[in-house]
Amino acid sequence: MIRVEHIGIAMDHLDEVNDLYQKLFNKPHYKEEEVVSESVKTSFFQVGETKIEFLESSKADGPIGKFIEKRGAGLHHIAFEVADIQEEMKRLEGEGFRFINEAPKEGADNKLVAFIHPKSTKGVLVELCQERR
Amino acid sequence: MIRVEHIGIAMDHLDEVNDLYQKLFNKPHYKEEEVVSESVKTSFFQVGETKIEFLESSKADGPIGKFIEKRGAGLHHIAFEVADIQEEMKRLEGEGFRFINEAPKEGADNKLVAFIHPKSTKGVLVELCQERR
Repeated sequence: MIRVEHIGIAMDHLDEVNDLYQKLFNKPHYKEEEVVSESVKTSFFQVGETKIEFLESSKADGPIGKFIEKRGAGLHHIAFEVADIQEEMKRLEGEGFRFINEAPKEGADNKLVAFIHPKSTKGVLVELCQERR
Repeated sequence: MIRVEHIGIAMDHLDEVNDLYQKLFNKPHYKEEEVVSESVKTSFFQVGETKIEFLESSKADGPIGKFIEKRGAGLHHIAFEVADIQEEMKRLEGEGFRFINEAPKEGADNKLVAFIHPKSTKGVLVELCQERR
C-alpha cells in the first residue's frame, strides 16, 4: 500500500460542508464529482498526499444514505492507493480478506476501486484504489 | 494543515488487530504505546506519510470503550499535523470551531494534541497535533 489516497466522510448538505471545511482547512475544495453508479455526489479537499472526500447521497436508499440513517454523518471509509489492484486483491484474498465487489470497478477521480468487506477488517470499510492507466 | 498525521481506529483485542492488519498492510506494526491519561493502548502502522493508529480501551468507561459500546469498532478520528497548534487553535476558534480541550495536551507519539468537538464539524472527531519541540 503506497499511501492513504483518501478518507471518505458521509455527509448531508454538501454545500454547507464545503463552507465549513473551507474554514477548517483554510482553503477551498478543489472539485466536485457525481458518481452515478454509487448514488453519490462528492467534494474533495487535499491535505498533504491525502484527499478528504465528502460523500452526499443522491438517493435516500444509496449506500451513503443508508449509512447516515443508521450511524449519522461521519467517517465512512479509508482508501489506500496500490500499484496493481488485481495483484493486491489476489494477495489479500489469499490472506482471507473478502471483497464486496469481486472485480475492480470504476470509482470517482479516475480510479479503479475495490472495497474489502468490514467483516474482514473488524469493522473498517477499506477501499483499494489504483490510478487508471 | 500539513498532512493527515494519523487515522485513529477504535478496536478490541489489539493483538488480533496487529495480526490481521499485518496481513492487510503486508508489514508489521512498528510500535505500541499506552496513553494512561486517555485510558488507551495504541498500536501503529505506517502507510506513506500517515500513521494508522489502533486504539484499545484500557478501561471500560474510557472514551474508546464508550465509543465501541455505542457504535462498535471502527474509524474513530482523523488527525491533522499543524506547524503551530496554539496559533491554529486560535484561528479555528475565530472561525467558530469549539475544542474539547481548551489548551493542547500531551498525546501519544510525542505530540501536543487538541480535539475539535464533533458538533463543530458535522460529526467528525478531528484532532490537531504538533510535534513537541
